[in-house]
Amino acid sequence: MFTVVVELGDRSYPIHIGSGLLASDTLLRQTLQGRRVMVVSNDRVAPLYLDAVLGALDPERTATCILPDGEQHKTLASVERIVTDLLQRRFGRDCVLLALGGGVVGDLTGFAAAVYQRGVDFVQVPTTLLAQVDSAVGGKTAVNHALGKNMIGAFHQPIAVLSDFDTFATLPAREYRAGLAEVVKYGLISDAAFFAWLQTHSRELQQRDPAALAHAIRRSCEIKAEVVAGDEQEQGRRAILNLGHTFGHALETGLGYGTLLHGEAVAIGLRFALDLSAQLGLADAAEVTATIELLRTLGLPTSRPRPLPADRIIELMGVDKKVRDGRLRFVVVNHIGSAEVRADIAQSMLLKILDRGVEPEDVAQS
Amino acid sequence: MFTVVVELGDRSYPIHIGSGLLASDTLLRQTLQGRRVMVVSNDRVAPLYLDAVLGALDPERTATCILPDGEQHKTLASVERIVTDLLQRRFGRDCVLLALGGGVVGDLTGFAAAVYQRGVDFVQVPTTLLAQVDSAVGGKTAVNHALGKNMIGAFHQPIAVLSDFDTFATLPAREYRAGLAEVVKYGLISDAAFFAWLQTHSRELQQRDPAALAHAIRRSCEIKAEVVAGDEQEQGRRAILNLGHTFGHALETGLGYGTLLHGEAVAIGLRFALDLSAQLGLADAAEVTATIELLRTLGLPTSRPRPLPADRIIELMGVDKKVRDGRLRFVVVNHIGSAEVRADIAQSMLLKILDRGVEPEDVAQS
Repeated sequence: MFTVVVELGDRSYPIHIGSGLLASDTLLRQTLQGRRVMVVSNDRVAPLYLDAVLGALDPERTATCILPDGEQHKTLASVERIVTDLLQRRFGRDCVLLALGGGVVGDLTGFAAAVYQRGVDFVQVPTTLLAQVDSAVGGKTAVNHALGKNMIGAFHQPIAVLSDFDTFATLPAREYRAGLAEVVKYGLISDAAFFAWLQTHSRELQQRDPAALAHAIRRSCEIKAEVVAGDEQEQGRRAILNLGHTFGHALETGLGYGTLLHGEAVAIGLRFALDLSAQLGLADAAEVTATIELLRTLGLPTSRPRPLPADRIIELMGVDKKVRDGRLRFVVVNHIGSAEVRADIAQSMLLKILDRGVEPEDVAQS
Repeated sequence: MFTVVVELGDRSYPIHIGSGLLASDTLLRQTLQGRRVMVVSNDRVAPLYLDAVLGALDPERTATCILPDGEQHKTLASVERIVTDLLQRRFGRDCVLLALGGGVVGDLTGFAAAVYQRGVDFVQVPTTLLAQVDSAVGGKTAVNHALGKNMIGAFHQPIAVLSDFDTFATLPAREYRAGLAEVVKYGLISDAAFFAWLQTHSRELQQRDPAALAHAIRRSCEIKAEVVAGDEQEQGRRAILNLGHTFGHALETGLGYGTLLHGEAVAIGLRFALDLSAQLGLADAAEVTATIELLRTLGLPTSRPRPLPADRIIELMGVDKKVRDGRLRFVVVNHIGSAEVRADIAQSMLLKILDRGVEPEDVAQS
């Protein structure tokens, strides 16, 4: 096991990363220290890992709230359900929520913890690659609104993150691959050497090689922890973590939550972010190609689904949180390993980019 | 006009208090500085003051969201409605919400501002006495849950509070009186001289005398600002502001939101808090009598409504936010002008106190 610390003064917290973290109950006990705990999970993850978590906790002081699985349940209604369970069991301000699941469970539980009685502690136990490298770290919590993803939320840091590799044993291939999109993002925004390492280790990553995974998760968490520590509430640099996400969120919202996995939408978004960067004269053609190649090698989509026309995507991007004073803001890549936010993107340029990279009419032709 | 500042470092903000603040548009313009504004109000206040507010703002950059009036609408559903309006109008993170109304509008709008895109600015324009002396100041925002009042919320400070006395011209007598309960609370928890002043000026306050009101509001805001500055997130001393509120919230929840006004429930709660303080050997009998007398003189209730039995009130108090580790915590008065939090109250003592102070079976007999 190794530990990455997110340095945020009195809100600093550890990300414990390793194998066997759930099987041994020591870490969970140390983290929760006998407090009252509400474990929030979903009906797909709970049958796999709930018993392991409950085994480490005092049954008298523990309750569970199992929600239906899926992004379409990341709503205020689910938050209300968690709050109802907390109130029915008379959990006070000194309780802890424990999010056991992927990004949806983590975002939702974190937001419930942020607003229950104006804020209680929570612990992240991410069980997907995407959650371990991205959503469980950094304190962004949120639920979706029919008109936009993550539009209702709060910055609320967990008191600890426990990332157990062993949970990948049960992770479906499609979800595993989706998590790799965020890993590629970290290379693109901040570490060219890591991007190169991903290129040379793509086969090991596809095969879920433990050593390769350990390095990929650790480096991803280190990069995210460093960016978050410098700009917790996204006043500036933290926005680079959203590379690919403005396009990605528009695809997710436009196609209906749950059609594309978040990581798949981000992969497509990364491709468009690179195209945009090249169009602006920043990234060069070889870097665009290398990015698309790496994403494809990892089994990720890089073409936008045909049902969503370009003008609808642009309309959806207009409600993104990256909008300031009516101007769309995009994260672009200066070169692989360096990113920045730009607010000067003409709509005509977006249309041009969106006209390419459409998925083939008939997949059989591709 | 005078200004009280809530000192919270880079989140400090002014409370402007005076007459004619809405009639003159200078202050509103200065506060909002040409930003996009969503004015949130209700269908009772909007017909009275919305035009004055809109007159000070750029129509191109302003939208309104008018909700139904009443505590029963202080819900997540209303927050979702505000968010829908914000998204439909494509308001970004740089927008400002303006709460025009009483405590319900302020708490609800503040919470919507706290969670919309993980937090946007908001301005409080309180139009009731209760909101001007209490709820608009200090950054507590929340909505109710069927199982408990203010159970879903956030600490989110406004960027400014504009308290215009002129709005009292249209405030119904019952609501005006309800606001005085919180004013009495400030004397009880922190300023014996102010309590004595309230006793000698109760007639002027009943008559809404401008000079008396100015003093009462100013002193209330000063006391609240000082307490909040010392303990923004209620880790300790800020809890004394909840004097009477544990009882009060239980009455509001138990009778159904909207039956008692919040200030009326607080008035009854203050009486029980004083009874409890006396029972603990803190406040003396004369102080209990003086408090009940002052509340009655100001036209406020001090007996609990008969439909709610004592054991149900105790049950409801068990879900209050003041509960820690299963123990009820009560704010008590050591003597008038000094309060503290106690966690050692036996249930038998609560039952004893609740057995007194029940409203007469037939009001005609009283």
